[in-house]
Amino acid sequence: MMTHPAGVFSAALTPLNADLSPDHASFLTHCRYLLDEGCTGIAMLGTTGEANSFSAKERMALLDAVVKGGIAPDRLLPGTGVAAFSETVELTRHALSVGVTTVVMLPPFYYKGVSDDGVFAAYSEILQRVADDRLRVVLYHIPQFSAVPISHDVIARLLAAYPGTITGIKDSAGELSNMIAMVERFPGFSVLAGADPLLLPLLRAGGAGCITATSNLVARDLAFIAAHYAAPDRVAELDAAQARVVAARNRVSKFAQIPSIKALTAERTGQPGWRRMRPPLLALNAEELAALSLR
Amino acid sequence: MMTHPAGVFSAALTPLNADLSPDHASFLTHCRYLLDEGCTGIAMLGTTGEANSFSAKERMALLDAVVKGGIAPDRLLPGTGVAAFSETVELTRHALSVGVTTVVMLPPFYYKGVSDDGVFAAYSEILQRVADDRLRVVLYHIPQFSAVPISHDVIARLLAAYPGTITGIKDSAGELSNMIAMVERFPGFSVLAGADPLLLPLLRAGGAGCITATSNLVARDLAFIAAHYAAPDRVAELDAAQARVVAARNRVSKFAQIPSIKALTAERTGQPGWRRMRPPLLALNAEELAALSLR
Repeated sequence: MMTHPAGVFSAALTPLNADLSPDHASFLTHCRYLLDEGCTGIAMLGTTGEANSFSAKERMALLDAVVKGGIAPDRLLPGTGVAAFSETVELTRHALSVGVTTVVMLPPFYYKGVSDDGVFAAYSEILQRVADDRLRVVLYHIPQFSAVPISHDVIARLLAAYPGTITGIKDSAGELSNMIAMVERFPGFSVLAGADPLLLPLLRAGGAGCITATSNLVARDLAFIAAHYAAPDRVAELDAAQARVVAARNRVSKFAQIPSIKALTAERTGQPGWRRMRPPLLALNAEELAALSLR
Repeated sequence: MMTHPAGVFSAALTPLNADLSPDHASFLTHCRYLLDEGCTGIAMLGTTGEANSFSAKERMALLDAVVKGGIAPDRLLPGTGVAAFSETVELTRHALSVGVTTVVMLPPFYYKGVSDDGVFAAYSEILQRVADDRLRVVLYHIPQFSAVPISHDVIARLLAAYPGTITGIKDSAGELSNMIAMVERFPGFSVLAGADPLLLPLLRAGGAGCITATSNLVARDLAFIAAHYAAPDRVAELDAAQARVVAARNRVSKFAQIPSIKALTAERTGQPGWRRMRPPLLALNAEELAALSLR
């Protein structure tokens, strides 16, 4: 069983049916593809997976389908943090009930200007209510969406109060310096980069890996980097893999990132349905699609 | 039946039991108090009501309890807008199922930097799925929390696409000029101030009323203002009422607003349980409580 997550975790896209419900079968196929490409695990139902555009019921049904479909629960890190702590408790308990022990947990994200005491109180309330020793939590720092940053002081307090439960953080703010500061301050705590190009420098600085969006496209390169980042005889291959990762990231950053990654997945699989998005996010338009596919 | 909301709507606080579940009985008492004080209706489960800290189940149970408790459904404007549009559909259908026809609807608020097209698509998807001619929607512009502003262009598109359904907006951004611009651009559309001191100037400029937090404390004064704002012989009384509204607003703005209003409600009712907050919001500490109660 995973205690402290390490490696390449894909912030998996969520394919949609024509009625915008999650397409369970295509998602299962995508999970198998990501694992075959070398991902350590699947961080399903995160920001890239449009998780917060799904109801609790839809989220639980998708996780059920994946586990029933044969993906080992210890390869799954579902997102369970929503605006209402009571629903976070429900989603987290549900994950545990199907054998998943590590979850990625956003802080409650509706109220803004929340104090460190408030963030600590929210996580504390959730962990005390879930009350399950099996639980392992990866905190989720993505202030550009949550608007509720997770400070180092909050991490220190949570690690002191819930040792063994708080095992890592996904840092999607994009600043390598913040990730390295956490690696240095919190020994044994898994710092996971939320941006693909930062996997290599973070691993070299003692980080644990990544949970990233571009992994939906270049998981094989990321897995190569994670396996060989410290190998003195693989420098040229590492440079080439890193260059492909950076190129993929740049490519999908030209237009809105999640729809772009979906569009390229539609291209790879030959299934245009992959392009569908849940509002408020929108699929790329024809012009953007054409520009994206020109390399 | 309310078509276009006008008057004073209280953004009602939600009292909590010791386990932080909504205290249905105290909430019902509070709703009766607000109506007795002269509120036109109760905008329950809004930002002030900590709505986004409750699960869909908890929200529906609270609305059920209030309707079962005898509050007329046409006096209720529950908030139904959450991050996931599918859950907004569920909450809105539930409101209709208990006889409530007007809801206050936040746009999906997790994803940021959403385009006008995305905001329009989200509301559109919701309205087409609810597909109920009885429905009346008050849009909710509160960018300091939602981070998804509702532009005038989005309003114009929604009014054109869903005439009769889109009936108003709660503008909590605090700029009177934006409210007046909407009054001028959209005749017949109810513009409701989200800040108590702006009720009087907004009514004088053709606005419809307010949905506000301080109304939990000074509903009587707000109702007086709404009834007599245009009466030339009531100027002194209006000035006095407005001064009390402004004083109340200033008083609760010294510390965090929602816990302050809850603390003063605890004082009024003699029930200290009213102070409880759901994390990430926190109750005032002893020092803040003492400072708040000194007038």
